[in-house]
Amino acid sequence: MVKNIYPKGEKHDKINHYDVLILGAGPAGLTAALYAGRYNLKVAVIAKSSGGTANLAGEIENWPGFFGSGLELMKKFKDQAEKFGAKFLEAEVTNVKKDDNGFVLEIKEKEIHGKTLIVALGTEHKKLNIPGEKEFIGKGVSYCATCDALFFKNKTVAVIGGADSAAKAAEYLSNLAKKVYIIYRREQMRCEPIVFDRLKKINNIEFYYFSNPIKVNGEKKVESFDIERQEPGKNKEKINLIIDGLFIEVGATPVLDIIKELKLKTDCNGYIITDKSTQTSLKGVFAAGDSTNNVLKQVVVAAGEGAIAGKAAYDYIQSLK
Amino acid sequence: MVKNIYPKGEKHDKINHYDVLILGAGPAGLTAALYAGRYNLKVAVIAKSSGGTANLAGEIENWPGFFGSGLELMKKFKDQAEKFGAKFLEAEVTNVKKDDNGFVLEIKEKEIHGKTLIVALGTEHKKLNIPGEKEFIGKGVSYCATCDALFFKNKTVAVIGGADSAAKAAEYLSNLAKKVYIIYRREQMRCEPIVFDRLKKINNIEFYYFSNPIKVNGEKKVESFDIERQEPGKNKEKINLIIDGLFIEVGATPVLDIIKELKLKTDCNGYIITDKSTQTSLKGVFAAGDSTNNVLKQVVVAAGEGAIAGKAAYDYIQSLK
Repeated sequence: MVKNIYPKGEKHDKINHYDVLILGAGPAGLTAALYAGRYNLKVAVIAKSSGGTANLAGEIENWPGFFGSGLELMKKFKDQAEKFGAKFLEAEVTNVKKDDNGFVLEIKEKEIHGKTLIVALGTEHKKLNIPGEKEFIGKGVSYCATCDALFFKNKTVAVIGGADSAAKAAEYLSNLAKKVYIIYRREQMRCEPIVFDRLKKINNIEFYYFSNPIKVNGEKKVESFDIERQEPGKNKEKINLIIDGLFIEVGATPVLDIIKELKLKTDCNGYIITDKSTQTSLKGVFAAGDSTNNVLKQVVVAAGEGAIAGKAAYDYIQSLK
Repeated sequence: MVKNIYPKGEKHDKINHYDVLILGAGPAGLTAALYAGRYNLKVAVIAKSSGGTANLAGEIENWPGFFGSGLELMKKFKDQAEKFGAKFLEAEVTNVKKDDNGFVLEIKEKEIHGKTLIVALGTEHKKLNIPGEKEFIGKGVSYCATCDALFFKNKTVAVIGGADSAAKAAEYLSNLAKKVYIIYRREQMRCEPIVFDRLKKINNIEFYYFSNPIKVNGEKKVESFDIERQEPGKNKEKINLIIDGLFIEVGATPVLDIIKELKLKTDCNGYIITDKSTQTSLKGVFAAGDSTNNVLKQVVVAAGEGAIAGKAAYDYIQSLK
């Protein structure tokens, strides 16, 4: 899959060289690839799969110029990056290190070399870490309403969380499921007000505020769910909700294990610290999108940062000449 | 056009109140409107016309998910912002001032009030003001190499200017075009020396110093370009260069006269200084896109900042409660 540019006699199958290595194939990584490609750089995008968490968004209505699913939009991003020459390597990177010529990705028995590195690894969904959660993943427990909602047509589901992702999951599920419970620990959802207003008008949605998830129960699949509610001035209640599915939408964290050797500076929540030009604390390494300490986790913001990172990679490579 | 929310008896036609006032209707302003609208805010976008300089881009191929003209794309941006409730006021703002309740735009005999202000005024490209220049915009005349270079693969182009933007445009174009002329009025480029050194080594770049642009010629598109060269101690020459494209890189400037009363801090080039959350030096005023000191003047970057500004405006208004 990787074009080998090494002279004959060397280990062809183990060594591949690029100008720009991009870790992650979500909106930030793909836009970085598009821009770096337009600057005539040799670009490799390395990811387990293309699209990132944007794939999981149902309808996307806040990418200007587009209405459709996240999956459709990410397919367009990828096609456009490929049009400008970016190569995609579906691979699991085990480690990233720096050498004298730039950066090296380790992928099983292969190494991929690049002069500069763009980190666009996005985030992964947070877990509740309650009994039954792990056990019932794929058997009623889901982290992706877009992916799994159809399994719960005319059934009863609960959504855990109060931010945008929970609100949107609940809204989407309410179109399919018989009943949707929203379980949230605070007194009110903290999602976009326009979405919250819509939710309150949906009559198969029921809110459980001041409530925390306790335990997922079932035999072979999810059958019920225990929560604990503590409304102000009232007694603490333990409530058992009969449900078929549980959608966990409590946020996301960057998963940066593969680049830990680079020791990039991160903020207190583990997000990579970047400046306005996407520069990280390590020369030659740029970062864009949800895995950074940017102020808004949205496709359009990640894409804008990806463009800046693509240009920054070009400027950096020019500076090496 | 503006819905009046003032009680009867007041000067209805002179006073209108919004949550968010957005100055400028390019990618940054329209995306800010989309986001602020989705946060259920009452939004007015005020501009002389919709679309900004993005309208001038011929084919846009670096907005992920879209191929088409700048005009088409900006129409989509506008439709989407309107879908979420933003009002558009085509008007020429004469002054912007701060009062106790927020900000006031003066528009002829009317005032528009807002709790918060997003400045997205973009820049204006400096023009040469020579015959043929205006006529051939989008037909060979371009003010943006990043946007349009790929249309001149294996063709001959001229770049006008001697500063960084001209140098970088020429360098970038030299990778794609067959031949690049650089036309500059002084004896040597005044760009970064490191960039200049690189330029001199590129063998498909030819310099015309002491030269001024005179006229762009062609039938339906650019075919040639007249310059006048006056080298020291030599006769003045009129030279006709056969070219396919003319890149005018003599600078762009933010035009911020209407907000000068707000005294926002700007950098040495006149761009509004913002932090990563689009906050300016004045509380309640945010800025996004090309009129700021961001590092890349591109639609996708401006849109990303617009989204952040829309969210920042929402957060600011929440903080007033």
